[in-house]
Amino acid sequence: MRFDHAGVATENAESLAFRFEDLFGCEIAHEEWLGDLKVMFMSLENGYFELLEPTADGTIAAYLENHGPGIHHVALETEDIDAALETAENVGVERIDEEPRDGAWGHDVAFLHPDSTGGVLVEFVEH
Amino acid sequence: MRFDHAGVATENAESLAFRFEDLFGCEIAHEEWLGDLKVMFMSLENGYFELLEPTADGTIAAYLENHGPGIHHVALETEDIDAALETAENVGVERIDEEPRDGAWGHDVAFLHPDSTGGVLVEFVEH
Repeated sequence: MRFDHAGVATENAESLAFRFEDLFGCEIAHEEWLGDLKVMFMSLENGYFELLEPTADGTIAAYLENHGPGIHHVALETEDIDAALETAENVGVERIDEEPRDGAWGHDVAFLHPDSTGGVLVEFVEH
Repeated sequence: MRFDHAGVATENAESLAFRFEDLFGCEIAHEEWLGDLKVMFMSLENGYFELLEPTADGTIAAYLENHGPGIHHVALETEDIDAALETAENVGVERIDEEPRDGAWGHDVAFLHPDSTGGVLVEFVEH
């Protein structure tokens, strides 16, 4: 599997995007609204930061309230998300999403439960 | 800059390594002791997970106590860590390490202060 992105919970995606541009040479690769969530993908040479700014209650807003801003998840790209989820099931890993669903950038995504992966919230992504 | 690795604080690096092997097809790329810290690099196609298991008090042990296991930092590879640190200084980003120091795998590393980077603990790495 390939590293796809590190998801970052933030109260101000645009301001953090400017900082990452200045600091890391990132560029804005993609922006969208996922419901009430403002999403900005900042390019690295081999992946992205995904900045996530909530504008209403939800999982990211709850994360910010409980943990403050910072790394929320790591996304791994797989060529076959169904097979990846089947492997997860076979090795006894709890899944938040039993089936792939529509995620940012029109990709199929599915999250694993962090209790099964050492506290790391992992997202599978199929482009 | 390139994604290099996601650093993961864990109470049991070996057990988490087996899980990541089963689940993501990772392989153990490198293991070492950094003082009292057991370090295991698990390969992805374009980077690594760095599993960090403390066996004595220190920053990772403190992190585990305060936050529980999970993603501790994101490391970005740069070809010129001195230039990267100078850029950080120029854009007003606080650095934990003012100068590069020896890190895991014999690489030069330097950490930025997460208060300056949206709560994300970022490590610069020069191979």
